[in-house]
Amino acid sequence: MLFLNESAIKEAVTMKDVIDAIDEAYKVYELNQFQMPTRMQVNDEDNTLLLMPCLTKDAIGTKLVTLFPNNKEHPTLHGLVVLNNSETGAVKSILDGTFLTGMRTGAIGGSAVRHLAKEDATKLAIIGTGVQGLYQAIAACAERSITDIYLHNRSPEKIPAFKETLEKWIGSTVQLHATESVEEAVSNAEIVITATTSKEPVLPDNSGLLENKLIIGVGSFQPTMREFPKSLYQLTDQIFIDTDHAIEESGDLATPLKEGWITHDSIQKMSTYLLSETKMAIDKESTVVFKSTGMALFDVVVANLIYEQAQGKGIGTKLSL
Amino acid sequence: MLFLNESAIKEAVTMKDVIDAIDEAYKVYELNQFQMPTRMQVNDEDNTLLLMPCLTKDAIGTKLVTLFPNNKEHPTLHGLVVLNNSETGAVKSILDGTFLTGMRTGAIGGSAVRHLAKEDATKLAIIGTGVQGLYQAIAACAERSITDIYLHNRSPEKIPAFKETLEKWIGSTVQLHATESVEEAVSNAEIVITATTSKEPVLPDNSGLLENKLIIGVGSFQPTMREFPKSLYQLTDQIFIDTDHAIEESGDLATPLKEGWITHDSIQKMSTYLLSETKMAIDKESTVVFKSTGMALFDVVVANLIYEQAQGKGIGTKLSL
Repeated sequence: MLFLNESAIKEAVTMKDVIDAIDEAYKVYELNQFQMPTRMQVNDEDNTLLLMPCLTKDAIGTKLVTLFPNNKEHPTLHGLVVLNNSETGAVKSILDGTFLTGMRTGAIGGSAVRHLAKEDATKLAIIGTGVQGLYQAIAACAERSITDIYLHNRSPEKIPAFKETLEKWIGSTVQLHATESVEEAVSNAEIVITATTSKEPVLPDNSGLLENKLIIGVGSFQPTMREFPKSLYQLTDQIFIDTDHAIEESGDLATPLKEGWITHDSIQKMSTYLLSETKMAIDKESTVVFKSTGMALFDVVVANLIYEQAQGKGIGTKLSL
Repeated sequence: MLFLNESAIKEAVTMKDVIDAIDEAYKVYELNQFQMPTRMQVNDEDNTLLLMPCLTKDAIGTKLVTLFPNNKEHPTLHGLVVLNNSETGAVKSILDGTFLTGMRTGAIGGSAVRHLAKEDATKLAIIGTGVQGLYQAIAACAERSITDIYLHNRSPEKIPAFKETLEKWIGSTVQLHATESVEEAVSNAEIVITATTSKEPVLPDNSGLLENKLIIGVGSFQPTMREFPKSLYQLTDQIFIDTDHAIEESGDLATPLKEGWITHDSIQKMSTYLLSETKMAIDKESTVVFKSTGMALFDVVVANLIYEQAQGKGIGTKLSL
């Protein structure tokens, strides 16, 4: 059994590898070659335990996550992924699920950049400079020759530490700009990624600032959460989602549908787009929206890739039960 | 984070420690100081993944079990227990769940022997010499001065290996007897433990052979499974169960209730018996029945004890995520 912590995972795979795994997961999703029951949620006052199993032909994966929103000195989220061999049932790997979740969520955005962004895009805005924003920036840089990243956070004092960490990942050739306003960040960018848990839109309700950009949202995962403003939906019928569930799970889709700003016809699954034989032409020069809420299938496909690469390279801690 | 495999667990605790933990778990159960949602079951053809979470004030525990009934070269059951800190949510330990399950199931039987068997009992019968039978024998020996164990298995060729393993645990002062028939095993014993997954009663339907003994069943965990014959139920109204769920889960309770051989009045929870202030007198000289189907609460209380003892003694592999 192979134990893979953050540093082992970093050694075993690149962000580009993980983006490849996300594209592979879209294939499995579209072809329905998986089993993913509704996740199990156990609440204890404000705290939550989530159990998210998913079976593919290559692995039986279970992500265990604890959410302790009131933690001050410890992270509020702790994750672990357990992989069992799909032939024998034996545990084959245990991975740091917190880091894996960051990498795979970054890679979901990275896959959207790969397939939906203009080839020559160089300017990126990140709204929300938390953990998820970090991996989004890293993944976007893996897919386009980004020269400038415009950063915005509700609490600007958090930006310097974010810059420092991001530079460790992507080097110092990319210019990182702290911006005073969301408007400033967005107006400079061709790709805009929002990674907040806001309940009110964080992007300006100003179609002039959003037009002809790729807008990626990875923050809202509940119907009460929203990052995108109404005017965004009036700009495009090119709206992509990572899973069917995103439609009910995220306020960035549930609200516009309920309010009639968009219809289901404007929304399509990324997996369907990627696998359709007669791929519909999308206009990357005009506005494109991608909204992700994630799913356990991504975790198990990514975890299995990490395990296989680590195994092949002799990385990780071998443990016997 | 502390990784505890079979050998670390063996070093950290004795069977008597684990029986103490079971008695502690009965307290938590009776006082309702836990949360234990219905386990999650994912089926893939003949194979099964089970996720069994349980929260106590001391730990958040999740047992992950795979069941691959068609395995020939590998065990059919693989288990892992993940313990999260109940104050922070962080993973504090990962334990071999296969071995832990064996130990805790043994200790459930051991607790029944501790509280329900005659003090001077020396003769034990084990029907079913699989993994569970092994730990039942070890646990019974931890609680009474057993001098003779009568072993019976449907496949007698499996008994020599069982004897060898059992001797490694309990030494060679206890006489181990392979018996030709269940009747022979039972007639010699004061404590009888059945540990099979039989669908038909494995004990003889002969009240003369069962009378005035402590009969413990740990095998049947589905309504279609039965180890006890009808005549057993006519001997006693002293029937103890480890959890309320046993009544629906096991054919050894569901069938007798349905057939009217017993009423609910004859059945009581072990936890209620142990914690009642005016403890009812039980007659250990006459027939007593104990039926267990287990629950995740036992796993988390036992796992937390093992973790704490290992931590205190410096046992196990320290891992950082």
